[in-house]
Amino acid sequence: MSDQVTLERIDGGVAAPAGFRVSGVSCGIKKKDGALDLALIVADGPAAAAGVFTQNKAQAAPVLVSREHLARSGGRAAAIVVNSGCANACTGPEGLAVTRSSADFVASVVGCAPEQVLVASTGVIGVQLDLDKIRKGAGAAARVLSRASHLDAAKAIMTTDIAPKEAAVRVVSPAGTFHVGGMAKGAGMIEPNMATMLGFITTDAALEPSVLQRALKDAVDVTFNAITIDGDTSTNDTVFLLASGASGVTVSVGDASYGALVAGLRDVCGVLARAIVRGGEGASKLVSITITGAASSADATKAAKTVANSLLVKTAIHGGDPNWGRLVAAAGRAGVAFDVERASVLVGSIVLFKDGVPFDDRAPLAADYLTGTDIEIAIDLGAGGSHQATVWTCDLSAEYVKINAEYRT
Amino acid sequence: MSDQVTLERIDGGVAAPAGFRVSGVSCGIKKKDGALDLALIVADGPAAAAGVFTQNKAQAAPVLVSREHLARSGGRAAAIVVNSGCANACTGPEGLAVTRSSADFVASVVGCAPEQVLVASTGVIGVQLDLDKIRKGAGAAARVLSRASHLDAAKAIMTTDIAPKEAAVRVVSPAGTFHVGGMAKGAGMIEPNMATMLGFITTDAALEPSVLQRALKDAVDVTFNAITIDGDTSTNDTVFLLASGASGVTVSVGDASYGALVAGLRDVCGVLARAIVRGGEGASKLVSITITGAASSADATKAAKTVANSLLVKTAIHGGDPNWGRLVAAAGRAGVAFDVERASVLVGSIVLFKDGVPFDDRAPLAADYLTGTDIEIAIDLGAGGSHQATVWTCDLSAEYVKINAEYRT
Repeated sequence: MSDQVTLERIDGGVAAPAGFRVSGVSCGIKKKDGALDLALIVADGPAAAAGVFTQNKAQAAPVLVSREHLARSGGRAAAIVVNSGCANACTGPEGLAVTRSSADFVASVVGCAPEQVLVASTGVIGVQLDLDKIRKGAGAAARVLSRASHLDAAKAIMTTDIAPKEAAVRVVSPAGTFHVGGMAKGAGMIEPNMATMLGFITTDAALEPSVLQRALKDAVDVTFNAITIDGDTSTNDTVFLLASGASGVTVSVGDASYGALVAGLRDVCGVLARAIVRGGEGASKLVSITITGAASSADATKAAKTVANSLLVKTAIHGGDPNWGRLVAAAGRAGVAFDVERASVLVGSIVLFKDGVPFDDRAPLAADYLTGTDIEIAIDLGAGGSHQATVWTCDLSAEYVKINAEYRT
Repeated sequence: MSDQVTLERIDGGVAAPAGFRVSGVSCGIKKKDGALDLALIVADGPAAAAGVFTQNKAQAAPVLVSREHLARSGGRAAAIVVNSGCANACTGPEGLAVTRSSADFVASVVGCAPEQVLVASTGVIGVQLDLDKIRKGAGAAARVLSRASHLDAAKAIMTTDIAPKEAAVRVVSPAGTFHVGGMAKGAGMIEPNMATMLGFITTDAALEPSVLQRALKDAVDVTFNAITIDGDTSTNDTVFLLASGASGVTVSVGDASYGALVAGLRDVCGVLARAIVRGGEGASKLVSITITGAASSADATKAAKTVANSLLVKTAIHGGDPNWGRLVAAAGRAGVAFDVERASVLVGSIVLFKDGVPFDDRAPLAADYLTGTDIEIAIDLGAGGSHQATVWTCDLSAEYVKINAEYRT
């Protein structure tokens, strides 16, 4: 057995790991006739479960109920039910009751305790979710569960996503071979609202819920939490991770197996996270912002997010303008240690600013690079530290404004 | 003498207070032939002087030199020289030398010490300022100084500002009658870059530099520091305040005269600040965001700025969409105490969300209100406190993206 961990990308999405069956059906929540709008993920037996949720103080009913269920079940789940078309957010006690009843119904269909059902919703805010439609949909979804239906499931969680987002990987490690799979939905709503991010990740590795939660956080911090489209955080953002144990490979902390799992999770979450940014509303470019030379890891992340969310940076990239002044100014206002006399700015591999001196003659070269769709920007803060962070974002186009300025009601 | 302070708006801009002469000339920094690009403000004698500057860690040469001069002179200034068309930012030691030489030259023309000259620049970043043009311009400007030239001065500090921005007020107070005047420039550059904000305020009240600095801060905190167009802070942002004492009215802290001065300053700075937002790149609406029910004053300001900078909020307002969900979500992610079950959202005087319950039937009424150009939004955080803050912003249009995506070089 090799000492190394190798990752091999495979098909199968969220159902690529053994021990899960999934489906995606239409139950009439979305206005368009026949549009898939309900996905079900069912574990063959109760799986270890972990979740990370929006930090927004206005949390949607499915977020509140899922957090409660994870706590009550001690991190075990048998099913996840997801609907698109309605976020069930800002819906008060009535919205909470609908979510609880949805979980109860799925529990009765699947044959598990209600607290072993996790719930996620995405779509328009402030509108009540129709429980009858959820019941009808969940019943139908339970009848067509299979490992082959992963694409239907990925389609059923979409709102205005341009394409379904799936990823899966085979992890060959000293501890054995296991799999990680997932699906996600990103920015954009049928009726323009806020950009909800949902991710559903599975693995057939075996591990305790507490270890699973830690592994999920280790993966999400540098993937889903390292992307930004417009800086707005939804009321519904959720990522769930279920572990079936069906591969027979046990993962423990302080063991090489843990590193292998995190590597697999980061790969799958990274692919999905970047797909979300690439599919951002009106986006035409995937932009990675790497900050180096930061005094602390927190400084690096803060500077990267400030640059990534700068409207002036995002519009310059959209226009193919190698405007390093905006990059310097955004880093300078990030509220972190920054020394302009020792800072540098690279667009691709082209140095445009270094040690306080601009190299404007290289602007045409950088402008040429910016015509591409995958853009890398690197800024050294010159703050004397060696910490770094990478954040992915997209450009800001007039199309984004048009999508989000359309009248909702 | 009445006990009350009355404010009367008057003409005259930055030269409305007695004791100042100003001018605006063309010296060839702007590419367009004959465009005014150098303004000079000269006090009849050394005036008390105060300044507030950008918090950006990348500070332009004129910011560095002006801070140094205020410190060395003990808060006294005889002249301010301003150029548009070149920001002299990220220009290293050469840029610093040009700014120092500019101040030296103006000092020799005006007949004062170099540290009694303040300097400001706005325009394209990373390009060296031509000292010969500044010398030629400052020489010419000194020959045409007058109180009548205030509009020329206001025009000479513009970049892509749609219109010159002036304001002035007569303050009738128990301590006597004095005047406050000012001019400002806002967001937008000839060659799209960052949005520099410059403000030049004068008064003929008499006061010590330390009191003047405090009064300036008291006024700027709720005016220039309470506006945001896109959340980006320039390398050059500066507001100067000069006091000539020519009215003979002395202002002291702990005296009713201080309140009268701050009232006058807030009025003039408020008019100029709102004019900057109204003239924001691509803006079609002036939007005030008022936060109430905050646990602290800092919370109120943080929430107001988060809402004001939310792209989803700004695009919804642009589109006339009374999307209260985006307002709730932005307040919820501001990182301040917020209780969605006790929060409320008003658009104009229309309650769209209160105590966790939406009033979507009122959306058409709110949509009608949003067709106006002056929009008021009020959000109560429901956090149990009584603190509040107001921030002004503008909508985000496709035009903003077009202006800022145009290729610079």
